[in-house]
Amino acid sequence: MLKHFTDTDIEELNRVFRLNLMNSITGYKPAALIGTKSKSGQTNVAIFSSIVHLGSNPGLIGFIMRPTTVPRNTYSNILETRAFTINHVHEDFIEQAHYSSAKFDSDISEFDACNLKDEYLNDFWAPYVADSQLKIGLELEDTIDIKANGTILVIGKVKEIHIEDSCIQENGRLKLEKLKTVAISGLNKYNKVSELAEFPYARVSEVPEFK
Amino acid sequence: MLKHFTDTDIEELNRVFRLNLMNSITGYKPAALIGTKSKSGQTNVAIFSSIVHLGSNPGLIGFIMRPTTVPRNTYSNILETRAFTINHVHEDFIEQAHYSSAKFDSDISEFDACNLKDEYLNDFWAPYVADSQLKIGLELEDTIDIKANGTILVIGKVKEIHIEDSCIQENGRLKLEKLKTVAISGLNKYNKVSELAEFPYARVSEVPEFK
Repeated sequence: MLKHFTDTDIEELNRVFRLNLMNSITGYKPAALIGTKSKSGQTNVAIFSSIVHLGSNPGLIGFIMRPTTVPRNTYSNILETRAFTINHVHEDFIEQAHYSSAKFDSDISEFDACNLKDEYLNDFWAPYVADSQLKIGLELEDTIDIKANGTILVIGKVKEIHIEDSCIQENGRLKLEKLKTVAISGLNKYNKVSELAEFPYARVSEVPEFK
Repeated sequence: MLKHFTDTDIEELNRVFRLNLMNSITGYKPAALIGTKSKSGQTNVAIFSSIVHLGSNPGLIGFIMRPTTVPRNTYSNILETRAFTINHVHEDFIEQAHYSSAKFDSDISEFDACNLKDEYLNDFWAPYVADSQLKIGLELEDTIDIKANGTILVIGKVKEIHIEDSCIQENGRLKLEKLKTVAISGLNKYNKVSELAEFPYARVSEVPEFK
């Protein structure tokens, strides 16, 4: 049976209940570690579930930042160096990835605290996560203030990509299940994903007759 | 082995390969049908994979719109009526959901063409997808132009939620796998999701000793 939450019900919910509910209703989310390094060399890595595809040519990717909360160093490092990396989270390091969201002191690198090895590839400034099999190097393109609640949309331009080649299919499609990339739900659930079906590009003339 | 795509490699990729690759590298994405209705009563429903959580109090959800492409009616209906719905896509109607992305003539409702039954709840203006077990009614809060590539971030405020109550856990967490909500990868792959692990809120004092 469908439970109905009205506007008033939502306002009157317990804070934690509403936080969990609002973070769960948007469905499955990507699990990515964002790696950065300050000008002085301090590295930072933090988990994000708000990565969103913005465009393919040029490749543009956005994510949502809450500047007043964790992970605060990610944003200042990006503004300072204009570089960051996005690294897929796979099944074998979900726990390390999750704990990167703890509010460590700013002189502690989450790479050390969470035993996530950093890696530098192709002279890119920001660190990659060594164990990740899909990693993207991005250059800051823009930041957009979201007036509605003070969050920020950070936009990066894809500068380079490193992908385990056995997952790359003809035509550039990826078999992410080969990488055991996970999906997040809510604030703290990590999920296994397996392919169900693939459909062709949807043309009006080829729409099946649904009954 | 990791395959490395440089900036130049990416620029020189075949258009379709780059399109698929860029749509795949961001990982798993939510699968949602957005329902709208024009002032004159024409309904529209279209699949989106760019839904992103923006905030919990108030509940704010964003999605990315390409105004010059499919599905063009969604945006004009939202601007006209300030109302839209977000409906989870479950395993049993992925094919109908997928074909809602075809460029139907604007006088054809995808609800009819794809055999997705519309439903009106609680006097909310925009139609819900009857078969969806998690549906959200939203009011337009803001639209933000993304200068980098002409896309638009559409932001809605959560006005009401309808959820199958057997998936609601204590504390507002949801067992989305009970609903058989799917995740999208790339442009056209639909994936089954199952829970792997759940971790507590990450406090520095409680971070495990990783080896």
